[in-house]
Amino acid sequence: MSFSEFRPLDENSLIEYIKATPSLSSKIGHNYDGLKIKEVGDGNLNFVYIIVAPSGSFVIKQVSLLSFFSFLSLNTRNYEMGFSSFCVKCLIQALPYIRCIGESWPMTKERAYFEAVALKQHGGLCPEHVPEVYHFDRTMSLIGMRYLEPPHIILRKGLIAGIEYPLLAEHMSEYMAKTLFCTSLLYQSTTEHKRAVAEFCGNVELCRLTEQVVFSDPYKVSEYNRWTSPYLDRDAETVREDNLLKIEVAELKSKFCERAQALIHGDLHTGSVMVTPDSTQVIDPEFAFYGPMGFDIGAFVGNLILAFFAQDGHAGQGNDRKSYKEWILKTIEDTWNLFHQKFTALWDEHKNGSGEAYLPAIYNNPELQKLIQEKYMKELFHDTLGFGAAKMIRRIVGVAHVEDFESIKEANIRADCERRALELGKTLLKRRREFVSISEVISAMKHV
Amino acid sequence: MSFSEFRPLDENSLIEYIKATPSLSSKIGHNYDGLKIKEVGDGNLNFVYIIVAPSGSFVIKQVSLLSFFSFLSLNTRNYEMGFSSFCVKCLIQALPYIRCIGESWPMTKERAYFEAVALKQHGGLCPEHVPEVYHFDRTMSLIGMRYLEPPHIILRKGLIAGIEYPLLAEHMSEYMAKTLFCTSLLYQSTTEHKRAVAEFCGNVELCRLTEQVVFSDPYKVSEYNRWTSPYLDRDAETVREDNLLKIEVAELKSKFCERAQALIHGDLHTGSVMVTPDSTQVIDPEFAFYGPMGFDIGAFVGNLILAFFAQDGHAGQGNDRKSYKEWILKTIEDTWNLFHQKFTALWDEHKNGSGEAYLPAIYNNPELQKLIQEKYMKELFHDTLGFGAAKMIRRIVGVAHVEDFESIKEANIRADCERRALELGKTLLKRRREFVSISEVISAMKHV
Repeated sequence: MSFSEFRPLDENSLIEYIKATPSLSSKIGHNYDGLKIKEVGDGNLNFVYIIVAPSGSFVIKQVSLLSFFSFLSLNTRNYEMGFSSFCVKCLIQALPYIRCIGESWPMTKERAYFEAVALKQHGGLCPEHVPEVYHFDRTMSLIGMRYLEPPHIILRKGLIAGIEYPLLAEHMSEYMAKTLFCTSLLYQSTTEHKRAVAEFCGNVELCRLTEQVVFSDPYKVSEYNRWTSPYLDRDAETVREDNLLKIEVAELKSKFCERAQALIHGDLHTGSVMVTPDSTQVIDPEFAFYGPMGFDIGAFVGNLILAFFAQDGHAGQGNDRKSYKEWILKTIEDTWNLFHQKFTALWDEHKNGSGEAYLPAIYNNPELQKLIQEKYMKELFHDTLGFGAAKMIRRIVGVAHVEDFESIKEANIRADCERRALELGKTLLKRRREFVSISEVISAMKHV
Repeated sequence: MSFSEFRPLDENSLIEYIKATPSLSSKIGHNYDGLKIKEVGDGNLNFVYIIVAPSGSFVIKQVSLLSFFSFLSLNTRNYEMGFSSFCVKCLIQALPYIRCIGESWPMTKERAYFEAVALKQHGGLCPEHVPEVYHFDRTMSLIGMRYLEPPHIILRKGLIAGIEYPLLAEHMSEYMAKTLFCTSLLYQSTTEHKRAVAEFCGNVELCRLTEQVVFSDPYKVSEYNRWTSPYLDRDAETVREDNLLKIEVAELKSKFCERAQALIHGDLHTGSVMVTPDSTQVIDPEFAFYGPMGFDIGAFVGNLILAFFAQDGHAGQGNDRKSYKEWILKTIEDTWNLFHQKFTALWDEHKNGSGEAYLPAIYNNPELQKLIQEKYMKELFHDTLGFGAAKMIRRIVGVAHVEDFESIKEANIRADCERRALELGKTLLKRRREFVSISEVISAMKHV
């Protein structure tokens, strides 16, 4: 079966589609006896079908007709936002890029393409932590990929539940080091790099969404912004009046828009990671493009920091979450330190390779090699803190909030948690260049 | 007449081509009586024909089959390089990207496309200082454009001859302010910007050439490097052994490769400008792409600095060039200061426009507006000094030299001039962030 134009599949047409698609039907041994289909996506965003048969399984993800909702990063994790259907309606009517379904649809639909390309490229570089893509249909905006079977859950849910993942820092640092290093000019030639940069320029609509929700809306009056009111009214106002903060966020926005450093995931928060104690899988790279590496590392670290500050709101009878908070701190510290170690090890390993940033004939002595790595990693560390801080701030006073805080029922407790995270975010954004090591960040987290 | 594939024109086929091309034949009133054709390009690089008829004129520029020579920025100004035909042969055989004519030809040919697009876009923004394009034929790699009639000469030749151009700083600052501002995110939307960035990623071969000859070769042993030997042997060696210099040039290279700030000319030295006392015309933007603004401003300023240091080699009976040197210093100072003034004036004028870098709803107070402009212009100033310095250094110890120095016959005098320029270049590259204003640069030039 092939379609010349997009049409949403239902459970019946899905089976026909699978039968006609060898790369999918082979995954279940072409055997449709005992086949089970479960629809798990929010129909407003993406259709996500889990297909399980006795001899195999996979997932089908298809952009839905109403998928402009997913512009707001709801995706298969619709609780991420926590805003009401009223808000969604406002957004549909008002956001300039989704003013009209007819206009926005072609770009919206293309995000499946960039997601598939990013999954394949990152998967090729780090197959341990990226689900395999079995099939992609551009016309249908449809991806067939590995089913991340139970007990995989979204990391953010695990962090809220207080579950420790002893391999998380190891796995995530591995994923980030490999995907970022190998798509940068430390590894690619200029020719490869520019070709890939050009292709991902096409994902401009999702870049614009990030610009708006991360770098703009929190710093101005916007009908989409919200916060735990009235507790944080003054805090939100303070963000909008902080000249230094606005100057710093502009610098980060400029890097986000102009600097094609590596193929980044583009939305690497704890809702884009599925975990078990043994497995870590990065999903949903629909925001992928060539941008600054620190945006990915910062997204992950920043969301761990949010998880840390939410713990006091989850503490209850019999569990004060103290040791869990220590585990989060350790995970943050390990994530950066392991990333640093793995990234520079890749650099050392490939320093005579095809990457054109630092030619061996020039940077040919160990002392110089050490100096350039230190300079590179220092800038990357400060980018990480800056972008991480921007991602924290936007989750507290911007449109899209995180379940870590949203699930804290008592508004005053939630506001206290959020305020501490916001204060640290502001400090990190404004004074990131004063931090020399991740342990200083940990120390600052303890003393907010 | 239309050609389905590239073929080089000679004087006969050229007339047929013009007759069949209304945008060209109309320029001479469709009247071929008294038509004169003069071939002025070096046949090894581009064919450049001047077509003059009683009722009008234009220039035809066509990439030649042997045009990979122009990879070395020889272009219509073949004296720029000053190397022997032996050197050219070495380059043909050895440079990786021109190893084989068959391989390199398609990309080489395409540079006419990027040149034409850049001429049109920059011309649309600053028609006073960019020759009008009348016609472009992609298949034929052929551009028909305004003939810059006498007394237009290449600026570099004017600087060697000691001719003052009182409007030069005014004109060049106008050209740079308009073309750079209006192709940046200060003026463009993200959507426009990313589309244009993607297109110019196609000009990768010429970007790679710049990477090699500006940011790499001068800092390593390369058979293509040359300098005024034996006088500068130790100086060239010192460049290759200077770790700090290498670290700084890597930072600039990274900006050149990764930062899509504006549509830059890409090769804006004094050989890319044609002048009369009243007119300033920027030509040959075949290296154009979305890169850092400072690369253009630095190229122009850096080449004026080279011209300054060459003057002592041109001083002779009856002309000590002292007042001319003062004029160059003033032109450098005026160029930056007028650029600063015009660029920020454009910013003020368009601060509520479609540019998405600094949204008015956020950067909405005069104090903040002033702070962000100061920060932006300070970084741009330091980029300008850094790139300008890199362009100076490469013209003294790299493959491509400038006529300013090459035309100084006595090697010892030439070496003295070059050494002073090299020393200043190294200082600017390594300590650019310590310079607060252009007058400090002027001061440093006087005291080298």
